Amino acid sequence: MKPRKIRAVVLLSGGVDSTTCLALAASKGREVYAISFDYGQRHRAELAAARRVARQIGCRQHRVVRVEVPGAGASALTNRAIGVPKRKSRAAIPVTYVPARNALFLAHALSWAESIGAFEIWIGANVVDYSGYPDCRPAFLRTFERMANLGTKAGTEGSRFRIVAPLLRMRKIEIIRLGLRLGVDYASTLSCYDPSPRGRPCLRCDSCRIREKAFKNIE
Amino acid sequence: MKPRKIRAVVLLSGGVDSTTCLALAASKGREVYAISFDYGQRHRAELAAARRVARQIGCRQHRVVRVEVPGAGASALTNRAIGVPKRKSRAAIPVTYVPARNALFLAHALSWAESIGAFEIWIGANVVDYSGYPDCRPAFLRTFERMANLGTKAGTEGSRFRIVAPLLRMRKIEIIRLGLRLGVDYASTLSCYDPSPRGRPCLRCDSCRIREKAFKNIE
Repeated sequence: MKPRKIRAVVLLSGGVDSTTCLALAASKGREVYAISFDYGQRHRAELAAARRVARQIGCRQHRVVRVEVPGAGASALTNRAIGVPKRKSRAAIPVTYVPARNALFLAHALSWAESIGAFEIWIGANVVDYSGYPDCRPAFLRTFERMANLGTKAGTEGSRFRIVAPLLRMRKIEIIRLGLRLGVDYASTLSCYDPSPRGRPCLRCDSCRIREKAFKNIE
Repeated sequence: MKPRKIRAVVLLSGGVDSTTCLALAASKGREVYAISFDYGQRHRAELAAARRVARQIGCRQHRVVRVEVPGAGASALTNRAIGVPKRKSRAAIPVTYVPARNALFLAHALSWAESIGAFEIWIGANVVDYSGYPDCRPAFLRTFERMANLGTKAGTEGSRFRIVAPLLRMRKIEIIRLGLRLGVDYASTLSCYDPSPRGRPCLRCDSCRIREKAFKNIE
């Protein structure tokens, strides 16, 4: 009898980091359950990218979950009355920050994980190229993990959830090199915060800029 | 100029505990933002109760947020194929446990709280009469609070979120006595896990049983 594969829920936005994270989980032999979020983001085109890469890399299941983010009004990503900055921002935490987004996303992932007996939750969070978001920081992820083990049935009955963030301290260029080694087709991904309705990147927002710079340096 | 009232987001299911918690927050002079969740619960009639008590007690705002709970299939509250137990259960954690429910609910509350500058999140969690749910335990709530302060813009920029759980160690009968002193109309509340479509309680589930016993002992 073949041993059962370790199950992992992987957060997948369809951008460079989460796609690389998904490819890495698959390459490590995980049975992968990808989860994406439809949360009223202006870059909803990323969900098409998420579907593409989920198909290319191969997942046991890919769910797109609707999330009504109560604090959506405060972010440029979810409130069209606030513009996405098109030049380098000097704010410590950018206006694209969505209140408690990763707490929300990880809580959804945790709920699914517990119900299918997956004790790893993979997230492509990264603090090097883009350290502005508080909910990507190591201390936040560590504390979420502790909370997950205290607040779930599985966690209190002896299983142990782990938040796996393998890209946390990698530079964007290293992430892309890793993905290329794993066979990721980055043409399928979308990083832009403010794409055209058909998913064409603006090439001017922070997220586009960081991505383009990394790809240029790789060539 | 009158000083601005302290804002509080209060989780409101429409049952005895959350209603008392709401009344307490209001009595302490908080400007109250109540939040309820439509998550596919079989006792969706509780939302009508939540609307009633929110109106009676008075809230600055009451939001009902839709939540797609990814682990819903695992719980008797959200999967109609699983029956709600109608006698005293001996399981440590009952089948009505919903994977990561309070992590999900609190994350939604946190997102709203951050966007409106509310730094208190009140929850009617209680460990005395009904200690089965891991996501009602003090250590879980404490760790969620820590996570909230690490993973938000406000939390990392000097504000401090607090999870306020004033009923945590009270017995049900004490909770009801407190509510009665505050003028709560418990006839408006609904505690049942398995009510009729019109909201008539079954009087046999755990939640009904605990409620009835407390009211009987008060008379």
